[in-house]
This record gives sequence, C-alpha cells and structure tokens, in this order.
Amino acid sequence: MNTSFSEELCLTNETGRMLYHKYAESMPIIDYHCHLQPRDIWENKQFEDIGEMWLSGDHYKWRAMRTFGIDEKYITGTETSYYEKYLAFAEIVPQLIGNPLYIWCALELKRFFDIDEPLCKENAEDIYVRTKALIAEKNITPRWCMEHSHVELVSTTEDPVDDLKYHIAMNEDPTLKTKIITAFRPDKAMFAAKPGFAEYMKALENAADMKVTTFREMITALERRLIYFQKITGTTVSDNGIPDFTWVDATEEEIEFIFQKALRGEKLTKKEDDQYRSAFLYEMGKLYCIHDYVMQLHIGTYLDANRKYVKRIGQSTGFDCADDSTRVQSVGELLNRLTLEDRLPKTILYCLDGTNTENYAILAAGFCEKATRAKVQLGAPWWFHDQIYGIDKQFRSVSNLYPISLSVGMLTDSRSFLSYPRHELYRRVLCNFLGELVERGEYFSGESELGKTVQNICYNNVKEYFGFK
Amino acid sequence: MNTSFSEELCLTNETGRMLYHKYAESMPIIDYHCHLQPRDIWENKQFEDIGEMWLSGDHYKWRAMRTFGIDEKYITGTETSYYEKYLAFAEIVPQLIGNPLYIWCALELKRFFDIDEPLCKENAEDIYVRTKALIAEKNITPRWCMEHSHVELVSTTEDPVDDLKYHIAMNEDPTLKTKIITAFRPDKAMFAAKPGFAEYMKALENAADMKVTTFREMITALERRLIYFQKITGTTVSDNGIPDFTWVDATEEEIEFIFQKALRGEKLTKKEDDQYRSAFLYEMGKLYCIHDYVMQLHIGTYLDANRKYVKRIGQSTGFDCADDSTRVQSVGELLNRLTLEDRLPKTILYCLDGTNTENYAILAAGFCEKATRAKVQLGAPWWFHDQIYGIDKQFRSVSNLYPISLSVGMLTDSRSFLSYPRHELYRRVLCNFLGELVERGEYFSGESELGKTVQNICYNNVKEYFGFK
Amino acid sequence: MNTSFSEELCLTNETGRMLYHKYAESMPIIDYHCHLQPRDIWENKQFEDIGEMWLSGDHYKWRAMRTFGIDEKYITGTETSYYEKYLAFAEIVPQLIGNPLYIWCALELKRFFDIDEPLCKENAEDIYVRTKALIAEKNITPRWCMEHSHVELVSTTEDPVDDLKYHIAMNEDPTLKTKIITAFRPDKAMFAAKPGFAEYMKALENAADMKVTTFREMITALERRLIYFQKITGTTVSDNGIPDFTWVDATEEEIEFIFQKALRGEKLTKKEDDQYRSAFLYEMGKLYCIHDYVMQLHIGTYLDANRKYVKRIGQSTGFDCADDSTRVQSVGELLNRLTLEDRLPKTILYCLDGTNTENYAILAAGFCEKATRAKVQLGAPWWFHDQIYGIDKQFRSVSNLYPISLSVGMLTDSRSFLSYPRHELYRRVLCNFLGELVERGEYFSGESELGKTVQNICYNNVKEYFGFK
Repeated sequence: MNTSFSEELCLTNETGRMLYHKYAESMPIIDYHCHLQPRDIWENKQFEDIGEMWLSGDHYKWRAMRTFGIDEKYITGTETSYYEKYLAFAEIVPQLIGNPLYIWCALELKRFFDIDEPLCKENAEDIYVRTKALIAEKNITPRWCMEHSHVELVSTTEDPVDDLKYHIAMNEDPTLKTKIITAFRPDKAMFAAKPGFAEYMKALENAADMKVTTFREMITALERRLIYFQKITGTTVSDNGIPDFTWVDATEEEIEFIFQKALRGEKLTKKEDDQYRSAFLYEMGKLYCIHDYVMQLHIGTYLDANRKYVKRIGQSTGFDCADDSTRVQSVGELLNRLTLEDRLPKTILYCLDGTNTENYAILAAGFCEKATRAKVQLGAPWWFHDQIYGIDKQFRSVSNLYPISLSVGMLTDSRSFLSYPRHELYRRVLCNFLGELVERGEYFSGESELGKTVQNICYNNVKEYFGFK
Repeated sequence: MNTSFSEELCLTNETGRMLYHKYAESMPIIDYHCHLQPRDIWENKQFEDIGEMWLSGDHYKWRAMRTFGIDEKYITGTETSYYEKYLAFAEIVPQLIGNPLYIWCALELKRFFDIDEPLCKENAEDIYVRTKALIAEKNITPRWCMEHSHVELVSTTEDPVDDLKYHIAMNEDPTLKTKIITAFRPDKAMFAAKPGFAEYMKALENAADMKVTTFREMITALERRLIYFQKITGTTVSDNGIPDFTWVDATEEEIEFIFQKALRGEKLTKKEDDQYRSAFLYEMGKLYCIHDYVMQLHIGTYLDANRKYVKRIGQSTGFDCADDSTRVQSVGELLNRLTLEDRLPKTILYCLDGTNTENYAILAAGFCEKATRAKVQLGAPWWFHDQIYGIDKQFRSVSNLYPISLSVGMLTDSRSFLSYPRHELYRRVLCNFLGELVERGEYFSGESELGKTVQNICYNNVKEYFGFK
Repeated sequence: MNTSFSEELCLTNETGRMLYHKYAESMPIIDYHCHLQPRDIWENKQFEDIGEMWLSGDHYKWRAMRTFGIDEKYITGTETSYYEKYLAFAEIVPQLIGNPLYIWCALELKRFFDIDEPLCKENAEDIYVRTKALIAEKNITPRWCMEHSHVELVSTTEDPVDDLKYHIAMNEDPTLKTKIITAFRPDKAMFAAKPGFAEYMKALENAADMKVTTFREMITALERRLIYFQKITGTTVSDNGIPDFTWVDATEEEIEFIFQKALRGEKLTKKEDDQYRSAFLYEMGKLYCIHDYVMQLHIGTYLDANRKYVKRIGQSTGFDCADDSTRVQSVGELLNRLTLEDRLPKTILYCLDGTNTENYAILAAGFCEKATRAKVQLGAPWWFHDQIYGIDKQFRSVSNLYPISLSVGMLTDSRSFLSYPRHELYRRVLCNFLGELVERGEYFSGESELGKTVQNICYNNVKEYFGFK
C-alpha cells in the first residue's frame, strides 16, 4: 500500500494523466475570489510557524476538530500556542480519510515544503520543526506563496465602505509580482433586517461623502463606492451573498417605507425583508451591468446556525451551514427582471445547497445572450463542495447542462495563503474527467481541442470573462 | 487518442458489451412520446440540408449556441440560411465535450450518414456537402428516418381541440410503415390563470360541439375529445405538464367560481390557481382511468423563465428551465385521491427537478396495485436529464427503489426526425450498468434472465403497458 | 458469466478486498436500531419456513411484489400460505436486478443456509424444502440468527407506555447470549394532531402513574418512562420520527392551549401542529440530554401516502414514501435552541429525503462541541437508501463534509431476524470505498490507520458513542 504522496493523484486514466501533465499542470493561476487580508499581502506578513499558517483562520479545520470533540482552546482559544493547536490537529489527520482537509494538507506539505510522508501524531513534531526552518530559510510569506504558486492575480473581498488603503499602497509597490484587486461586496447594505443597519448607513455616508437617508440615496452611494473600487483596483468583480431568498415584488414606495423602518431599527417582517432584498439585488445588478462588473451570487448559506457559538467565538468560525430554502425561481426572477430592462450583467451563480446545482446550471443557460461567452454561468463548487467528489460530480452533471468548456474554472475562496493547490486538485479532477470521456468513446475530437479546452478552463476563460489585463 | 466514432461507445465492461450487441442493439423502437409534427410525417417533408434537420427546431442546440454568445441571427434568425446556422453550430461542436449534443450529433452523423469523423469548423463544409448529397440520393425524409431506425410506433402530442386531420389521413395511407398515434395533452385547459383561457374554451366548444360554460361542461367536452382521439388513432397516451404545483382542496362550488373568474379573464390568486389545477388533474385522472389511457405527468418545468426572449422569439425556444417548487406530497395527494376513488389510471411520473427523482420513484411504488405491472412508474430521464450521466444515474439510484426491469424504457420527447439514436444511447448505458452489476457480483441469475430484462426494457414492457398492438 | 454467489461481492479493488477480509469481516455486530418484536426474542419463536421468515412482515418485499402487479392475497393476504407467498416472491427475484432485495436475499440464503445459487422460479421449491429442513435441523430461531451473525447487542424500539415485560424477562435469562435493550420512541405523544391522542394520554397516565392533564405533566410523565426504560434495559437510545416538520416558536401558554385542544380531539391548524411539535421535540431533547440518551431524529417520512391501502392493510405495510417538505433550518433551529440552553444531547440525524443528506451532514458538524466525539452526526443511509448505491454515495459525499472515521456505522432498522447481512454489505461498500481512495492516491497514511478506521466504523465507535458495556 502506497504511503507517500503520489504525483498521479486522482489521475486514473492515461488520457487524463497526459492532459494534466502536458496542458494543465504548468498553467498560471488567477484567483478571482478569496478572503485574504490585503494588509497581510501589503505587509508581507511573517508566519510564526505552520500552526499559524494552518490554524489561525481556517474554519474548515476548526469544524473538523470540533467533530472530534477537541477542546475549543486548541481550536480558537487564545490561551494556547499555534504549536499546541497544530499538534491537536496533526493527531486527527490520519482519521480524515475522504475529507478535503487530508489531501489539502498533503498537497500543501508537498508543494510548499516538499514533504512526501503523511502527517500523523508520530511525525508531527518533526514536520513542525522542518517547516519552521523552511519558513525562515526561504522567507515563506504571503507574497512568496503567491509567486511560488504562479498566481498572476488575486481578488480580495471588501466592503463598500472600505477605504482600500492597502490596495492603494500595493498599486504603487513595484516589488509586488501578483496583481491584487478586490471584489465589491455590499452584503451589509442588503441585510436591512439585521442589527447595525443604521450604523452601517452612517459609515456609507462617510465613505461616499453624501447623505444616505433614502433607499435611492443608498443606491447612489453604493454606486459611488463601486466606481471608486474600480478606479483604485481596476476591478470588475462583485460578490453578493444571498441566504434564504424569496423574490417578492414591491413598489418604490414600499421599498422606501421598509428602508425607513430598517433605518429606525424596527423589526422587518419576513415579507418586507424579502421585498427589500429583491429590490436591492435588482438595483445592484443594474449597477454591475452599467459599470461592467461581473455579478457573483452566493446562494444558499445558512449563516450563524449555531448562535451560541457564533456569539462566543464570532461569525465565520465554522458555524455556518447550507440551506435548502431558496427556490430557483427566486434567483430566476432576478435574472429575468434585469434581462427585461436590458441590464443583466455577466453573472456567476454559486449554490451551497449542492442538490440544486443542476437546476442553477439549467437556469444559467436560459439567460445567456449574444456577444458574451457564458454570460450567466455556474461557478466552481463552493465552500463545502470544493473537494474532489464535489468537483467531479459537478463536471459530470453540469457538463451535460452547460458547456463546461466555457467555465471560468477554479477559485480558492480561501483565507489561507497556502490554499493554491486547490487549483491543482481541480485541474487533476478536470483532466481525469475529460480523459474518461475520451476513453469511453464519448469524445473524439482529438488532443489539440482537448488541450485547448483544459487551458481555457484553467486560465484563459477567466481572463477573458472578467477582462483581466 | 481515438479520433473517430467507436461502436463500443459507453461500454466499459465485457458483460455490458455482450448484452448490448446481442440483446439490445437490434430491438425495434417504440417512441411513445415526442413533439414531431404530424404534418411533416404525412407530407413526408423534404429536408433542404442538415442545417434544417438540426437547427430548424432544436432548442437544445439553440441554448448551447447562446451560451457561446453567438448572435441570435445564427440561431433562430430568419435572415440567415440553414447553411450559415449549421456552420455557426459546427464551430462549437468540438467545445461541447461532456454535453449530449456532442454525442447526439456524432451518433446522428454515424447512423444516418455513415460519417465517423468528428465534426469541426475545418470539415464542416465538407460534411455539409456530403450530407446534402445523401439527403437527396437516399431521399432522407421523416418516413425514411423512422424506417431506417426501426421505429414501429410514434406518438405525437396534440391539443384536445386538434382535428387530427393528418392522423386521419395517415391512418389511410398503406405506404406509411410506422404506426402514428397521438398523445392527448390538455395543458391549455389547465392553465386557467393564463391569458387566452376564454378563447381556448371557445375553441373547445367548437371541437367538442357543445356549450362550455361551466367546469363540469369543460370536463365533459374534454372527455368527448379524449374519446375522439382514441377513436381516430387508437391512442392510450395522455400527457400533462404540471409546473409549480401545490395540491389544494376545493369544493365543487369553489371550482366553479374560479372557472367563471378565469372565463371572465380575471386574475386568479395563487391559491385559486392551485385549487383549479388540483381539481383539473383529479378529473382528468378519472377520465384517463375510465378510458384506459396512461397518464403521463411532467413535473417541475419552469416555463418561460426568460420572458424578454420568450416574447421576442416564442415559447419552447430554449428559455424554459427546471423548477424545485413542486413538493412530492402534492403529486402524492393526486395519486391518493384517485386511488381512494378506485380511479387511478396507469401513471408515469417524469421529474425535471433531477434532485427529486428518487423521491418520485419511491412515491410510484407506493401506488402500485394488483393486476397491472408497474401501474405507477418513473419515466425515463427527461429533457435536460436525457443524457448519458442522467440516464446512468437514474439506473443506479432508481433500480434500488423500483424494479427497473419493469421500466417502459426510453422515448425521445423530440422535435427532430434524427433523434432516434437517443434510444441507442439509453440502451448502451443500460447494458453497461447491468454488466457492471454482474461483474461486481451483485447479480448472478445468468445471461438468459439478463437478456430478457434488456429486451423488456427496450421494447416489450412499453408495448404491454400501453397495450400497443 | 458468474452464476453463483461471490465472496468478492462489491469489492473491486485490491486494497478494499484486503481491508474487508482482514479487518471488517469478522467484527461483531451492534444493531442499535431495529423494529424486532421483543416477544419473538423472548419466546425464541419457531419459524414455519423461509416464507414466514421473509414475508410475514417485510414491507420492502411487499412493495416490490405490488410493483409487479401481484395479487395482494399473495402479499399480505390471510387466505394464502407462506409457501404460496414465497413462490410468488421467488418468481420475481431474477427480475430484481439492481434492487437491494436481490442481494439481501442472496446474502441471507448464503449466510444462513449456505445456498450459492440464484433463487428463481425453477429452484424455488427445492430451496424451500432445503431451507425448511435446515430451519428444523439447526433450530434456526431469532436467538440462533443473532448468535450466528455475531450480534452482541440489539436495540428494539418501544413506545413509552410499554411495560417492557419481555425486556424484564430477558434480563433474567442467562441463556440469552445477545444483550437486548430498547429505544424510547415517543412519536404518539408528538402526533397531537392525529386521532387517538386523548386515549394515548390516558395510557401514558397509567404507565407513568400520574395525571396527564397539561403539556408540562405530559413531559414529566414521559420523563418518568424514559427513566424507567433506562432502569430496566440500561438503554441510552431514543428515536423520534419527524415527518413534514417546520420549526415554529410558541409561548408556554400557546403550547398549553394547543395541548388542551388536542386533548379535546379538536382539529389543530398546521401552525398549531408545528408549534406543538417544535416544543415537544425541544422538551424531549432536553430530557435526552439530562438522562444521557442519544437523540435519533428520523427526518422526512411521508407516512401513509396511499390512504386507501393503509386503511385496508394497515400502517407500515409499504405505503409510506419519502417527503421533501422539511427544511434544514427547521432541524437546525431545534439543535440551536438546545445548544443555547446547554442541553443538546448526542444526536444522530437520519434523512429519508436522500437529496438532503449532504445538507444534514453539514448541519451536524456545525453543532459538534468539546468532549464528545461526533456529538451530532449523520446516521447510516436509512430505509429506501439502505442499499449499495445509497451507502456508497453517502460515503463518497459525506466523508468530505464530516469525518466518516467518526461514524457509528450501520444498523438494520429491520423487522427480520435474517437482516444482519446488511451489516456485511455496508462493510463491503465501506472497504471498497476506502480502497479506492488509497488506490487513487487520496490517502496514504498506511494500513494500520486504515484498519483501525474500518474497525471503528464497524464496531468501536458505536460502543463508545452510546456507552454500551
């Protein structure tokens, strides 16, 4: 039984192996959606050890550790060191068979530290020491990780009120080899039903340098920020989370009434919240179209499911889940309304409720139109579904519903500078899938077409679609 | 790497290959549900070229072309020739890896024109010329296609008000080798909430030669037409589309009230529409049972999702999608009510929301009863799911929930006379699936039982179930 | 083509075969959830023949027979013998390719009667005679079946009002080699909206020896019974069916009002029913936590879908289906509320709507916390999904979302003493899945870790989780 990392990982057929090694392996990376901190890139943060690199912000690992009943102090506690957390995590790695964490860790050890052996309790200390030495020796920093992984462009994600000071600074830094832009993510303005909305509107007033006392003024303020984001970073990326969404029509007057209610901190009804969110997404969609942004919709999150721990540990720390409440027709109606106004931007649909992936792929194809390749498309498997099984399943099913040769491919959506091997995993699964089709006689247009398709999905499509220079 | 069509397409194991070539390949075809135009069969339409055969009505190809951003004039435009449309389509074929269009086109070129090589931009003109010559030389017409594909019976789909004049004519044509019947599809009478309902009732009055001023009269008029359809074509096939359906009870008085409202063109509430549709399907189910029709229910369409383009280009041109709003209990309650009245007809459930396939298979088994084999059953993967992955997945999952040996097998649901190789694809996937079970030791009852099962699913079951002579 | 039972069933790779034969095959069985009758075990019931063993209570077989249109008299009729029913069933076995009944029957014939050949019409009589002789010769009884299958512990399922007299008797029987406990299943107290609720409360009064005139008193009475169940059998197992569930908040007063309405036999609204059930499950969850019970939630049943036949033949006779109405957020809110009160018990989620499996796995991980391994977890594929495809699919998908090495593994959920080979099937599929991961390079921590994981999932985890001695 094999007990070290294999370069033929996930490649079970000859055509797939050829495609991966010949066409995919060496393509550069464009990581058009992630949650890295621009400050870390700007300051080129020094990592203490692999414990910090792995466990300071990775809610995937935190969730897994909690399933093993590990004490929270070894997960997010402030009283323990990254070394101790790393040891607690290393101990469960051999029990993570079938889980993306297993192969992500293996790939990260291999690609960044050239470690072939499987991490476990017994060699955890040794690997800790070796990686710590390498971090120092090679000066492994955010920028090093990006360069080492052939990352050409990274898009962070910022709130409209962000001043983008690190992005401004990075623009003027000639030593930075990776292009850094940001996605415009106005979720806080959409969550009118949540506490803190009025305060957020104040922050928006300051950022946009105008009064925000009406819904219309808010949209104008967001447009100013959207223009600002583009001016500073040249971005064309936007991002909207839409948990538990039902499209409900409303008049301009109703929306204004709801907005005022929210400003006063009054509780919105479910219907009012849906009306507000429908109107908000519609207005944002128009702005994205006008200003040549791509609209990314992240559908189906079940935010803060476990409220006791969210309150104690914070949001985005591993207590979000996936929800099955949003109906395809709600997202469809958003696309329909924008199309009726000739204001549908390029749109990427991500669906966290994995059962609905196929329905969204079908929906996307129904809103494509001339002059833009893959105008509306399905995004890569997202969050919980970003793993070998999820990627493979999406290729197998969705290719039948939407030409996958048009896909803009993979993104990390990550908070870790070590996560670029997720692109490698995606490419391996892609090549293996295509190879299987060839070997079953389902495709016979030859190597040159196949190679082109692989490279388009890995790199060329995303560049063209977002208009990245 | 293989670069021509393979006769072992989709057959990855020895048992599967044996089963396909020995038992499935040469079975005749009964195509019990499609959308071919009876006029085209009666007149034995002359095709101009492969452009017309492929692109005059195929919304699958139209959708795919739109995802590539191709100008609508090369898709449905009237200002361009079929030759130009064909060239625009041919160019994207090599990029359709994993999509059913790729393998459908390959099979159609192989089976009707004996072309082995993959279509692409470079050979598009050459293949155009060769196929055009063959169309003329062999006089490739609707009837030729059906005979060449060993099609014994075809069921078109007509509205209750149709006079069936082409079917009458075809009945009396001794040169027509394929039996042509029609399915009875009363959708327009179910869409009381849609514009044009009153006009449609007028048309029904004329067709049924009676007044239609009440819900009860409408049902009687539909029964007259249903009897007429059976008298003319001997059909036992009905077909009902049920998008976004919720079962809601109503009294006879409520239904009459809703019917009158609809006749006056007044807007129905969502509840009224659901009540009306529940009552309508229940009454139709009773008629189907009384008159020995099979009730086909097509569940989960999201009709006209993109209304701008539907308005511009028309219905059924590629802007329908799949919906996840219909709950299993709604369809279950329809079956339950009919069973309580001892009036449940044979029923085939088709589900466009692919995620729910298993739940409908489970539901179907719960309503089977004595004397009829597979009284309620799941239909073949439909529309977007009619492809290798969808078919294979349904075999793998549904066989566990409902004996697949009882399945009535494949249908094309198609608007194209070249679509019969879809039966071939289904048979290949079937044999490959069965072969795998054998090779994994999951079935060991021997070749004779297996061969019988294959031939039953391909041909015998459907003949027995519908009572086709 | 192989025509006899193979010991390499489902094992398609070398690593998987090694894992199964070396680590899984000989592990004992703990069957922590089933519907066996304690009386049958106590009395060590004599079986008349394989007809009785197979067809006296198995709704899986009944459902399958109905799909073939077999007359109900050969299914559940009282006028026909088990021999006749067996013959009717045997005849369809060769047509059950891909269905769990095929391989379950094959395994049961092999493991209990050492029969290798496939059952069919032709050898049905011969196999009947041979098995009848063996039943007599070996004295094949409930206890024999359990011992022969290396079953260490069985948990039956009883209503809170049950006096557990057979369990008491079995406790004192030194000849009984298998430990028998029971699950506490208070469904009847949850179905306040169903007929018979008031009568059931009377029975609960008697069982708990106290007045039950309020919701609070009912909860106290249930707690008494829960303590009694634990005192008698040492059980830590509870079980709740939650069909079509929507979490709705209510005040204590509202719940009391609804309870009184239900006691008077008045019809509850849908909202009242949801409020009552939300409150009920919340209160039961707290009790389970306090008394160290594991809470099993069986989500998504569509009970009594076909009411005509339920009325004629009875409940749980094959007319239940799967429902897609329960939303993940409803179950999530139950877990959240219990967590907020620090009263979340160990919980196992089972989901009959197979499409939602992944969402529940994700949910489970969001509620794990320190000191308990896999505090909230997904159960084995249940009911319709307890088959090779369903098990394999769950391993492949869920391992990515929740560490499967923590799973408490398989249970039969069965009404038959012959059903223990379902554990064998589960183990085969498990080992094959793990073997594939190894052979694709996705896991390389070595045989010892793998073997431990296999044995944990087969046996050790469930013992630790439930605290079985």
